[in-house]
Amino acid sequence: MKVAVVPGSFDPPTLGHVDVISRAVGVFDRVVIAVVANPSKSPLFTSQERTAMLEEICSEWDNTEIDFFDGLLVDFARERGADVIVKGLRAVSDFEYELQMAQMNHHLSGVHTVFLPTSADHAYVSSSLVKEIGRFGGSLGGLVSPVVEAALKERFQ
Amino acid sequence: MKVAVVPGSFDPPTLGHVDVISRAVGVFDRVVIAVVANPSKSPLFTSQERTAMLEEICSEWDNTEIDFFDGLLVDFARERGADVIVKGLRAVSDFEYELQMAQMNHHLSGVHTVFLPTSADHAYVSSSLVKEIGRFGGSLGGLVSPVVEAALKERFQ
Amino acid sequence: MKVAVVPGSFDPPTLGHVDVISRAVGVFDRVVIAVVANPSKSPLFTSQERTAMLEEICSEWDNTEIDFFDGLLVDFARERGADVIVKGLRAVSDFEYELQMAQMNHHLSGVHTVFLPTSADHAYVSSSLVKEIGRFGGSLGGLVSPVVEAALKERFQ
Amino acid sequence: MKVAVVPGSFDPPTLGHVDVISRAVGVFDRVVIAVVANPSKSPLFTSQERTAMLEEICSEWDNTEIDFFDGLLVDFARERGADVIVKGLRAVSDFEYELQMAQMNHHLSGVHTVFLPTSADHAYVSSSLVKEIGRFGGSLGGLVSPVVEAALKERFQ
Amino acid sequence: MKVAVVPGSFDPPTLGHVDVISRAVGVFDRVVIAVVANPSKSPLFTSQERTAMLEEICSEWDNTEIDFFDGLLVDFARERGADVIVKGLRAVSDFEYELQMAQMNHHLSGVHTVFLPTSADHAYVSSSLVKEIGRFGGSLGGLVSPVVEAALKERFQ
Amino acid sequence: MKVAVVPGSFDPPTLGHVDVISRAVGVFDRVVIAVVANPSKSPLFTSQERTAMLEEICSEWDNTEIDFFDGLLVDFARERGADVIVKGLRAVSDFEYELQMAQMNHHLSGVHTVFLPTSADHAYVSSSLVKEIGRFGGSLGGLVSPVVEAALKERFQ
Repeated sequence: MKVAVVPGSFDPPTLGHVDVISRAVGVFDRVVIAVVANPSKSPLFTSQERTAMLEEICSEWDNTEIDFFDGLLVDFARERGADVIVKGLRAVSDFEYELQMAQMNHHLSGVHTVFLPTSADHAYVSSSLVKEIGRFGGSLGGLVSPVVEAALKERFQ
Repeated sequence: MKVAVVPGSFDPPTLGHVDVISRAVGVFDRVVIAVVANPSKSPLFTSQERTAMLEEICSEWDNTEIDFFDGLLVDFARERGADVIVKGLRAVSDFEYELQMAQMNHHLSGVHTVFLPTSADHAYVSSSLVKEIGRFGGSLGGLVSPVVEAALKERFQ
Repeated sequence: MKVAVVPGSFDPPTLGHVDVISRAVGVFDRVVIAVVANPSKSPLFTSQERTAMLEEICSEWDNTEIDFFDGLLVDFARERGADVIVKGLRAVSDFEYELQMAQMNHHLSGVHTVFLPTSADHAYVSSSLVKEIGRFGGSLGGLVSPVVEAALKERFQ
Repeated sequence: MKVAVVPGSFDPPTLGHVDVISRAVGVFDRVVIAVVANPSKSPLFTSQERTAMLEEICSEWDNTEIDFFDGLLVDFARERGADVIVKGLRAVSDFEYELQMAQMNHHLSGVHTVFLPTSADHAYVSSSLVKEIGRFGGSLGGLVSPVVEAALKERFQ
Repeated sequence: MKVAVVPGSFDPPTLGHVDVISRAVGVFDRVVIAVVANPSKSPLFTSQERTAMLEEICSEWDNTEIDFFDGLLVDFARERGADVIVKGLRAVSDFEYELQMAQMNHHLSGVHTVFLPTSADHAYVSSSLVKEIGRFGGSLGGLVSPVVEAALKERFQ
Repeated sequence: MKVAVVPGSFDPPTLGHVDVISRAVGVFDRVVIAVVANPSKSPLFTSQERTAMLEEICSEWDNTEIDFFDGLLVDFARERGADVIVKGLRAVSDFEYELQMAQMNHHLSGVHTVFLPTSADHAYVSSSLVKEIGRFGGSLGGLVSPVVEAALKERFQ
């Protein structure tokens, strides 16, 4: 049984994240979504809120699990017995940073990283753009799940 | 059971290719290495020779299989019941082209592509550089497997 | 009245090209599509065939015109009284080469280049991939116009 | 009549910005320069100061207008009846981010973005570098307009 | 006699920095390592601490010298009579920013910049990753010199 | 005494090449310009013609020498006792390929590569564009030295 960890801030989760998770679900036997509890930029949603949104979004798959961590990703991956780390890739600049992280994580733990490209339709969706659109009352349709749209509207009221 | 196809020209296979195959072997249940029979540039080795080299190299794993194809990769992947296509990524420029191919292959067939980064030690190894070094009698240690080193030496005698 | 030149090999025109032309049609008063008569790689379709396909594709707009040229683009642009050169951009690697061409063309003639990004849906479509798919009998739906699909099928019969 | 919006923080405007505006002035009938009132990083100059500098710089053209906005760019563009958004491009990394923004803005509003490359001479000029040079009393000749040079000197006295 | 300045925040110095310094030592007659006293992000180590670590690391070479500066690099380089500025390059994104800085520094002072690529083994090592690993008690072997490892452990106790 | 090798096809040399050579001349004690005798694409000028053009161009410096080689660059560099290989960098895509070559050449021989960025004014000049402009009778001023301009005119008469 192959276990994959999909780490991220998910502040908030976008349809781009959902796209990557849905691909991981098809490729691996078990997918642990690992929410970064305290990302370097102070998050809009608490780790509890982000976890709750992901739980609602992922309820359609029975081989996913949501968890959060506060430390090194490789320590979390080892504790959970993960075979691989999975990261979505949208753009060239993502790739360079993620390649660096993948090589560092392999150096630290021997765990490999697998990259899943996001589909062309979601290549321009990011959590930070989604927050900016929410802040100014723009339309979030086609960018986030209904549960996230509701949370953003409430937060920016 | 998850089946992955690892396509390539492998003209000749390098230690970078071996690195990617060895990672795929650890992540997927069955790995079909798919040799492009007639790549756009005329190859140095015939598809039989390239297949034979890969068979020797991959004999240490019992969940790999070597095959070749002459047509669209997505047709081959479908025939073999592949769940995913696996590609190694060395550099940013690789990534852009491979992302385009991955999106096209998904458009054509619904099959997703998974990217495995090569390790930092092999990031500079490519089949074309290896052929150039072989042509001028340079040292191939640390770049290709012994069977490939022997084949290159014979070819350029 | 602003006149734009949209140069390309168009061997054959794809829906990505059509997307860029349709944007140019909305931004400029007159759009001259400039077919490179003899591209560096020998083309699959003659310049007459490529011109004819573009004429059929562009018949829906009344401010476009198809022409071909054999020489420097800047000479063609000057002869046609163009205010700008328009190029589509799909990817980062496109951008670098096109930026170099734009700076060279400005050095040679003072004519500026304007870049139009292709939509995310067409970012993976290129003439060379379309020819490869046509050669092996793959499905061309969503990649090229019907007139181009018919021409590719005939050519590869 | 084609109306273009040229958005930016302009904190402060550089000769690179002037270069892009001067190209937009030649290509479009009316150019609205849209100052981001509250950029994410706290600006060195207030939106009034930045607007005043741009007004002095753009006084040589009679089809430009300076305005500021505080919200989504696409809402501003719609209110002003803009046909296109215009962005300067200096570097590959600019391109990736701007392509993402362009696709998002098109998703939100249907308004397209047109990219104008900066000339090779100004490719290395940015507002943040100009501020750093001003802070340490370096020479600003060839980097900013006289009005901006005076403002930077006064600010860092 | 050719004098090179190697600037950086060195917060803290990594084995990637040491690799670049060791190459500069082999190419130039005298190497002045120039510590940015007050980098834009508030540093973990004071400029005195960073200078002391570099002095210990560089004690094996007799043509190096450690100094710090607080202002424009080009002013420091001129004061020290430097013939060139030396920068390490790990990745494509480094390159773009460094190229911009090199062109700006040449515009300001006429001093040229020379780039030394880091070896493939250190391409993924950065000061910020090293600090994150230190913060969470990860293993720093193969990433930093013993003196830096000790300092990080003490700081995060 | 530090010896640098500056390799290239120089088919023909451009002002971008001259810019890089002039920088190498200022940084190193002796500069050996190494003409690739038989580049992979068949050259427009013979190695004798390319060498003669470089000799005329470099006659203003007394620490340069022109030579040609036919084999591996690292073998040539070793024979000539070179301390470093010097390469000009114009663009991000150049950088990736050159980084790969630098790492391979260090693997093969221990010789390091140093990169010199071309000045912003010459970033868009390449041998292949210069040949295309010459072929169609465009103006070569500001792109190549007079001796190269004359040679291109004669060749394309």
